[in-house]
Amino acid sequence: MDFFTWVIITAGFGMAFGSLGTAIGQGLAVKSALEGVARNPGASGKILTTMMIGLAMVESLAIYVFVVSMIILFANPFKDVVLELVAG
Amino acid sequence: MDFFTWVIITAGFGMAFGSLGTAIGQGLAVKSALEGVARNPGASGKILTTMMIGLAMVESLAIYVFVVSMIILFANPFKDVVLELVAG
Amino acid sequence: MDFFTWVIITAGFGMAFGSLGTAIGQGLAVKSALEGVARNPGASGKILTTMMIGLAMVESLAIYVFVVSMIILFANPFKDVVLELVAG
Amino acid sequence: MDFFTWVIITAGFGMAFGSLGTAIGQGLAVKSALEGVARNPGASGKILTTMMIGLAMVESLAIYVFVVSMIILFANPFKDVVLELVAG
Amino acid sequence: MDFFTWVIITAGFGMAFGSLGTAIGQGLAVKSALEGVARNPGASGKILTTMMIGLAMVESLAIYVFVVSMIILFANPFKDVVLELVAG
Repeated sequence: MDFFTWVIITAGFGMAFGSLGTAIGQGLAVKSALEGVARNPGASGKILTTMMIGLAMVESLAIYVFVVSMIILFANPFKDVVLELVAG
Repeated sequence: MDFFTWVIITAGFGMAFGSLGTAIGQGLAVKSALEGVARNPGASGKILTTMMIGLAMVESLAIYVFVVSMIILFANPFKDVVLELVAG
Repeated sequence: MDFFTWVIITAGFGMAFGSLGTAIGQGLAVKSALEGVARNPGASGKILTTMMIGLAMVESLAIYVFVVSMIILFANPFKDVVLELVAG
Repeated sequence: MDFFTWVIITAGFGMAFGSLGTAIGQGLAVKSALEGVARNPGASGKILTTMMIGLAMVESLAIYVFVVSMIILFANPFKDVVLELVAG
Repeated sequence: MDFFTWVIITAGFGMAFGSLGTAIGQGLAVKSALEGVARNPGASGKILTTMMIGLAMVESLAIYVFVVSMIILFANPFKDVVLELVAG
């Protein structure tokens, strides 16, 4: 049963730590975008485009963690093995 | 069973910590790109190209972690050995 | 069985921590490259070349960790020894 | 068996922590090189030479860790001693 | 057997932490050298000489750790004592 307990803990906290860093990274990016628009409003279109591309790249890192969490929860390759071990 | 539990924990938290640092690294890069576009909108094309190359290099680090996580989950070289040890 | 458990933990978390630092290092480099292109777009070719050399050197550090992880997973020199110890 | 377990842990995490610091060090060096090329593109040749020497010195530190990891994995001087102790 | 286990852990992690700090130190040194060459390319010869002396001094710190790791691994002065204690 430890196994299933840790599956839940890992999916939840893994996603949490993964988005912790990702959020700091995106925060740094948005912060600069806002400072940039404030300093040079005429360039706001270009700044917005660059920000979206950058944020999408950072977002992809959080998506990797999300994919691993979903695999662990819904397509766990060790579920059957562990169930047999417990049953046997 | 400890083995399978730790496989899950490692895949989940490894990916999480891997993207934690990667996201901060990419955030630093995007931050500078945005400051650069704000200060010098005329160079936004060159800045965007440079940013994409840099982000791709950083992204590769997260992909290494993703590959190791996937190997651990779906092509675990020690799965059979451990199952035999448990069964025997 | 502890042995196989820790092989997995080491490969996954080792790669994670290895890319955590490497990503921050590369982020610092890309950050400066982007600031440089913004300040002096005419030098973007030279900046890009220098950045690629620098990023490749930093990337090599992550590749060392990746190589050690792969050796531990797929060419583990102690696998047979441990299996004999467990069996005997 | 603890011995073999810790050999793996040490090789993997040692390499990981070794490249964590090395990568930050190289990142700092590349960062300055890029700022230098941006400020003074005419000196890019001299800056690149100095950067390569510096990066090679830092890289050597990661190579020391890699050498120790490889010795521990493939030329472990205590392997036979431990095997005799376990067998005897 | 604890003894041999800790010999390995000490050699590996000692080298890893030793180069972690040394690498950051060298990175700071190279960073300043590069800033200096960029600001005053005419002094690049003198800056390079000074940097090499500085890096060699920092490198020596990593070499101390490397030497201690090698002594611990290959010329361990307590190996025989421990073996007698285990056997006796």
